[in-house]
Amino acid sequence: MATVLTYPALDAAPVAALHKPETPFVAVDRRKLDANIATAAAIARAGGVAIRPHIKTHKSLVIARWQIAAGAVGITSAKSEEAETFLRGGISSVTLAHPLVDSVKITRLLTAARTSGGEVRFIADCPTGIDAIGASARQSGLTAPVFLKVDVGLGRCGVDPAGDAGVQLARLIAGTSGLQFAGLLSHAGHAYGAGTPAGIRSTARAERTAMTKLAERIRRTGLDVPAISVGSTPTLLANDGFDGLTEIRPGNYVFLDLTQVALGIATLADVALSVVATIVSCNRTHAIVDAGSKVLSSDRGPHGSDALTGFGLAFPLGAPEGSAGMAVAKLSEEHGFIAHGGKPPGIGTRLRIFPNHSCVVANLARTLWVYDSDGQLDELAVDARACVH
Amino acid sequence: MATVLTYPALDAAPVAALHKPETPFVAVDRRKLDANIATAAAIARAGGVAIRPHIKTHKSLVIARWQIAAGAVGITSAKSEEAETFLRGGISSVTLAHPLVDSVKITRLLTAARTSGGEVRFIADCPTGIDAIGASARQSGLTAPVFLKVDVGLGRCGVDPAGDAGVQLARLIAGTSGLQFAGLLSHAGHAYGAGTPAGIRSTARAERTAMTKLAERIRRTGLDVPAISVGSTPTLLANDGFDGLTEIRPGNYVFLDLTQVALGIATLADVALSVVATIVSCNRTHAIVDAGSKVLSSDRGPHGSDALTGFGLAFPLGAPEGSAGMAVAKLSEEHGFIAHGGKPPGIGTRLRIFPNHSCVVANLARTLWVYDSDGQLDELAVDARACVH
Repeated sequence: MATVLTYPALDAAPVAALHKPETPFVAVDRRKLDANIATAAAIARAGGVAIRPHIKTHKSLVIARWQIAAGAVGITSAKSEEAETFLRGGISSVTLAHPLVDSVKITRLLTAARTSGGEVRFIADCPTGIDAIGASARQSGLTAPVFLKVDVGLGRCGVDPAGDAGVQLARLIAGTSGLQFAGLLSHAGHAYGAGTPAGIRSTARAERTAMTKLAERIRRTGLDVPAISVGSTPTLLANDGFDGLTEIRPGNYVFLDLTQVALGIATLADVALSVVATIVSCNRTHAIVDAGSKVLSSDRGPHGSDALTGFGLAFPLGAPEGSAGMAVAKLSEEHGFIAHGGKPPGIGTRLRIFPNHSCVVANLARTLWVYDSDGQLDELAVDARACVH
Repeated sequence: MATVLTYPALDAAPVAALHKPETPFVAVDRRKLDANIATAAAIARAGGVAIRPHIKTHKSLVIARWQIAAGAVGITSAKSEEAETFLRGGISSVTLAHPLVDSVKITRLLTAARTSGGEVRFIADCPTGIDAIGASARQSGLTAPVFLKVDVGLGRCGVDPAGDAGVQLARLIAGTSGLQFAGLLSHAGHAYGAGTPAGIRSTARAERTAMTKLAERIRRTGLDVPAISVGSTPTLLANDGFDGLTEIRPGNYVFLDLTQVALGIATLADVALSVVATIVSCNRTHAIVDAGSKVLSSDRGPHGSDALTGFGLAFPLGAPEGSAGMAVAKLSEEHGFIAHGGKPPGIGTRLRIFPNHSCVVANLARTLWVYDSDGQLDELAVDARACVH
């Protein structure tokens, strides 16, 4: 980051509250979280699209319920175990935005949906996946909604929107007994590489064009395309409008992080998640804190990018508004190296560290400590933390 | 890595076994694990030093017990909660190799030691830490052994071995009521930057010289230095002898990983830990697996180094001996991008991925699947997984 980022100071009550839990811990600013949830909901409402947040970012049932209270139509998850946790936790509609090809996972998920009275929607991008979901659905006596996954430029999963496979596979889904063609689904994760709000907006435009065109080609064959679902935090906050789309699935927006700040679509004052750590040692160049890569992760940005040079930005917890940050220059597994520039805070000082990537930080935490402006502090479970499958 | 790494093939029985658990999962080769434990124990025995493995690598009580059965005198941990988990799990001696300055953690740990009938040894590098441990020990009515932490070049925690602080702080520990001066402790983590076995050996030599010289200076003041504890996997496997030292504390050696292979101190055939993942999608350049940075981590090497260019090396599970690996080129949180070089294995194929850094992989797993040559498969808990404090 070229610019010096300065501290969005905390009031005395939150500062006092954040001195209570043992360090390191993940702190979430309730006021900012609520503002971020409201902003996204307002963008979706104004754009005439449904919002179905990706819960990989927080993995918390309570936060998912807050998102739903603000208008979300359900949630998105990446793992079958996450989806099960949220279905059993009372979330009534889950899109599993990862291509499942394993019938054990698919059947278990269908069972969880039936038992909980909820619904699960799948994605697929090849005949193997479509066949596997179809077989499990028939065996379970259910009809499973399946989206065709479209690759709009990330180069990960999905069909080429310009090729023939899209139309063929959409029709294959529709024609498979036990399945219902739900529509098209994409994730423009390459927007993180676009660098600027203008670049992101142009990525969003290209995604929307590719998706609506493919939908049109499918519709021309006589097949309805009920939904077109896209989603990422960059293309939410630097969107190009949502004409022709029906749903967005952003995840990171609830917390934000240094990656979003570097992209120019958020300020440090918008970031709701930070890690609180204690200085336990100090040498001539670095203060050493009790938070390393097993709390902050080694992420330099999403999708393995090297967008950021350090591993976070640290401030003394009670620092005044506008204080300059200290770079987290290096990480061991349980130590962070804070470049103190010759002015080390004392041993025992608590630092608040803004991480590069909030989604992986919450995954490394056992709980999230949610604080309010009045110093109220609540410990929320990361309910789907151990969901690796 | 300059050289092409080829597959150390698995026998048919383990291949069949590793098709059973749901992917992604962490697989541990029992035969290789045992060999790595035996190698380290033999090096320690031959060198006349005790071995006290760092359990951050596996966080498993069962594996710790195997290490102790092979001669380890106790364990090392980085977190107070890890230490508590292992004390309560029946491990009788724990060195907490992280400088604690928080009396809540210290007192709780002393209580855990007393309740379990075990012992906990601390480290300190400043008066604040020494005072905090002393106060908690006196309050608990116990005598706490405390090592002086020495910085032998990593630039993290510890006193400069050439300065005056070392002698002064050793005497401060010895003179503090409730404390017992245990000796000197260092970690030559900068050996990971030495690049070659010769470079590592020279780092080990410099560490040994610095530590024994400081001990000599302390002894000259009339204070006994009961122990000199050093430790890292590189300086274990590329050691320079152990004259004057009493203990080593390697961690990673039980599993090893691509980092140790790149350093030239292990071969791929020695690596006991891998991640098994399934190909769920495929495009022109990459096969996409269901393992991303939330299983493999984004580590490129220890201590935030960029020693490795990819995020792991992948092979089809049943590939024949000598097959060339495919690079894990990129990671999303729950997807891995496998560069298939125009020859993609089919959807549903299981890949075995050797990670860059085993210690952070085990921390992201809920369990370790330990397999034997005959196809026996056991699920071990990562007991201290959630220990963030």
